[in-house]
Amino acid sequence: MADKSEKTKARLPRGFADRSAEDIRAVEKMMATIRSVYELYGFEPADQPLIEYTDALGKFLPDQDRPNEGVFSFQDDDEQWLSLRYDLTAPTARFVAENFERLPKPYRSYRSGWVFRNEKPGPGRFRQFMQFDADTIGTPGVAADAEMAMMMADVMEALGIKRGDYVIRVNNRKVLDGVLEAIGLGGDENAGRRLTVLRAIDKLDKLGPEGVRLLLGAGRKDESGDFTKGAGLADAQVDQLMEFIEQANKSADAMRKAAIAGDLFNNEIDQSYFVLKEGGTFYSSDLCIEGHQQLEEIRSLARSAGYGMDRVMIDPSVVRGLEYYTGPVFEAELLAEIPNEDGQIVRFGSVGGGGRYDGLVSRFRGEPVPATGFSIGVSRLMTALKNLGKLDSTDVIAPVVVLVMDKDTESLGRYQKMVAELRAAGIRSEMYLGGAGMKAQLKYADRRGSPVAVIQGGDERAKGELQIKDLIEGARMSAEITDNAEWRAARPAQVTVAEGELVAEVKKILAAQAEERSK
Amino acid sequence: MADKSEKTKARLPRGFADRSAEDIRAVEKMMATIRSVYELYGFEPADQPLIEYTDALGKFLPDQDRPNEGVFSFQDDDEQWLSLRYDLTAPTARFVAENFERLPKPYRSYRSGWVFRNEKPGPGRFRQFMQFDADTIGTPGVAADAEMAMMMADVMEALGIKRGDYVIRVNNRKVLDGVLEAIGLGGDENAGRRLTVLRAIDKLDKLGPEGVRLLLGAGRKDESGDFTKGAGLADAQVDQLMEFIEQANKSADAMRKAAIAGDLFNNEIDQSYFVLKEGGTFYSSDLCIEGHQQLEEIRSLARSAGYGMDRVMIDPSVVRGLEYYTGPVFEAELLAEIPNEDGQIVRFGSVGGGGRYDGLVSRFRGEPVPATGFSIGVSRLMTALKNLGKLDSTDVIAPVVVLVMDKDTESLGRYQKMVAELRAAGIRSEMYLGGAGMKAQLKYADRRGSPVAVIQGGDERAKGELQIKDLIEGARMSAEITDNAEWRAARPAQVTVAEGELVAEVKKILAAQAEERSK
Repeated sequence: MADKSEKTKARLPRGFADRSAEDIRAVEKMMATIRSVYELYGFEPADQPLIEYTDALGKFLPDQDRPNEGVFSFQDDDEQWLSLRYDLTAPTARFVAENFERLPKPYRSYRSGWVFRNEKPGPGRFRQFMQFDADTIGTPGVAADAEMAMMMADVMEALGIKRGDYVIRVNNRKVLDGVLEAIGLGGDENAGRRLTVLRAIDKLDKLGPEGVRLLLGAGRKDESGDFTKGAGLADAQVDQLMEFIEQANKSADAMRKAAIAGDLFNNEIDQSYFVLKEGGTFYSSDLCIEGHQQLEEIRSLARSAGYGMDRVMIDPSVVRGLEYYTGPVFEAELLAEIPNEDGQIVRFGSVGGGGRYDGLVSRFRGEPVPATGFSIGVSRLMTALKNLGKLDSTDVIAPVVVLVMDKDTESLGRYQKMVAELRAAGIRSEMYLGGAGMKAQLKYADRRGSPVAVIQGGDERAKGELQIKDLIEGARMSAEITDNAEWRAARPAQVTVAEGELVAEVKKILAAQAEERSK
Repeated sequence: MADKSEKTKARLPRGFADRSAEDIRAVEKMMATIRSVYELYGFEPADQPLIEYTDALGKFLPDQDRPNEGVFSFQDDDEQWLSLRYDLTAPTARFVAENFERLPKPYRSYRSGWVFRNEKPGPGRFRQFMQFDADTIGTPGVAADAEMAMMMADVMEALGIKRGDYVIRVNNRKVLDGVLEAIGLGGDENAGRRLTVLRAIDKLDKLGPEGVRLLLGAGRKDESGDFTKGAGLADAQVDQLMEFIEQANKSADAMRKAAIAGDLFNNEIDQSYFVLKEGGTFYSSDLCIEGHQQLEEIRSLARSAGYGMDRVMIDPSVVRGLEYYTGPVFEAELLAEIPNEDGQIVRFGSVGGGGRYDGLVSRFRGEPVPATGFSIGVSRLMTALKNLGKLDSTDVIAPVVVLVMDKDTESLGRYQKMVAELRAAGIRSEMYLGGAGMKAQLKYADRRGSPVAVIQGGDERAKGELQIKDLIEGARMSAEITDNAEWRAARPAQVTVAEGELVAEVKKILAAQAEERSK
């Protein structure tokens, strides 16, 4: 085992990451907040396994042309294909279809967990990441979609994101599909092409109008020289689409300006998304009209409940990349400008999204089971909150360390008893378990960020005494150059007390440190 | 999509399960308690991904002769093999080896998460299950092992398991290895055979002494007729081993009896595990002697810290199935007799275990990195707590349901506003989002277990009023046959109030229900 030449390499496959204690604590806290909002809205927890039959998950990932592209798959003993879930929606659909009769309908549930994408990982892109979803299954009414949008606005605010620093953007796939129908891309035979077009539009933020134009037409070469094939639309079709996008962006800009000015319920601006007005280019499309009516109902429900344009906004340029959406789609966008990984100040962008997926449960049932849901990207949202200074795990105090000065079993037993006493008093603490001397032990305590060290060598033991070091105060004092005798007298960095005073003295020091921190 | 003949089957692969809302809540609660004990002991949260390189995980699962047996594996784009983790220890070893320099040592961490076993699932056996581990890495001192045992005792009690209803059993692989060496199974050439012997001994609870005897010898045919090949020991070797096991069991029995009698620190009985006394059969083995010295130190540390035989007990028959253990091993056993799946009253048995795995980090480092850890089987422990009546999630109140009597957008907006008001007051609530009539809506509220329903039809609306139904009281009243006019007067199941009274009235009813429940 100790032969260096034969040792196994300790490394992770690309796209996977270990999480730090700080991140875990921050995510726990954040998820508890999200959970409390979902619960407040009457959703119940649910949980599906991470592995499903491949055919049960279906193939709805973007940019997925080859079979199993994007998904981790493997064969079971009986030769059937299994896959790791790529999102939480597909397993939810399987679960609801399987248990349809016994579930209350509409079925309102939430779930969090790891999902996997077997794709080329890039900076900040992972092959395993966490989502936190809510779904309402069994109702076609867009009141359920409106509720999703409002609930996500509530989640953002519960997490401490200020009003004006986020917005929930809502659109309807039917509007987009209607527009595509109007320019001659209707019918089943154009399904694949429609998807290519939608995904091109979805890249507007990243590539700008010129980039999207290329993807709608012949194709686009990126900076690395890779060529992405375009949707192959004629120039006239591209022009019509770009006009639609331009109008959508114009209305979105007008809404944002009004929102910033505090003009949150201005009906005229609020309805300016209605770019397909009577007489307009796309008005003839039934799909467009139906889509707009649904958007208008969502808008109206949100406004009645007091959610203005600043929180829930209709924006016809929202796409969402997944294939299974059939109606309203949402995106939670952080408007706050935050430093990115390279230190540039940028608008943070999407931290979650979702939409109506009426076909996903029906796939199993052979009868319509309408459904809508929302998914929060946990890691992305956490990164945003961290950058906004909204996540704080400093309330966890590192453990008190009882140093080991003598290593005979009897002494160890005595140190062990000290930590047991401290723990019984609810004080996080540990006996040093390494093999090193006093200096190394104090260095360990420092590395852990410990507030207090407890020391009992032979001399103290003979007198029935203990030394207790205030490590926070000690660090401060050693950092101070000037003489500070008065302060030392008021709160010394080290005291010697009788054995029986251990818990009381440690409590006293921790309380003093807490008071210091709160200042 | 709606063609029944083509629909996808909604089902899970064998060995995987969905979790109910009740189970999820119960597990959350249980894990929060476990976490608080780990934190109290100064352990920090850690988290590794679910996928690792196959070679980084190593092959340490029991009954695993063929490559990849027991593990879900698949090839990456670059042809390298990846696997889903089969426990939390192997990824922890990889993580520590990879980050060794920057971690404080000893490194004390805890982690929970799903692990996967690609094996034949049986009743109550799953291919995906959750573990909750704590590990101390970087110290050879058995004080770390002693701490693990005591911490697990604390975990059991924090979960409400009474003293006497559980015990942490401790043994040392060195003792077992010494015994095997003494009967002629020492040396690298017998490594495989030693493992077969250990696993036979591990089945003592299940198969009894006669079954173990067969597995130590030629082999054993089970009830289904399947034959398991034995270790092929000679009769004399089997006799010696069985004598050892018998002595171990005798001392364990004596300790249990003493513990039940409250004789918790009786040194004579406490040390009766020391079956390999001077002059005894196995005393000549250095490994045995070293193993016993370590057990004695663990025992002594536990006793000094106040943990008696009833909580931490030395038992030389404990084995643990995993191959990577090198020193002390532990098992947390529930002694309480609990109904099993068939309704029979049985001793529940193991809910977790662990041990020292000094070779696992060294595999990567080419230098010794001693380590010890403990793993709790979350689902198994939850089942036990449920059966003991120690898990309760009834503190979660189902949502108030606002019924939808009129479906025009304006009315929906009004209902939406009501739920928004209730939620703003912290009351879990929802607007009914299905398409059904009043009767179906009340049935939905009943199915959800809702405490209150809020109703506003056209008449009430005209008068600016609301009807509020106490559904708990209503259900009780309809269950009562006798006339109960007085009670009804005191707390009516339905009231009509002004719109502005919604929140106050719902609060009043919920408070009355809470008082009822607490009685």
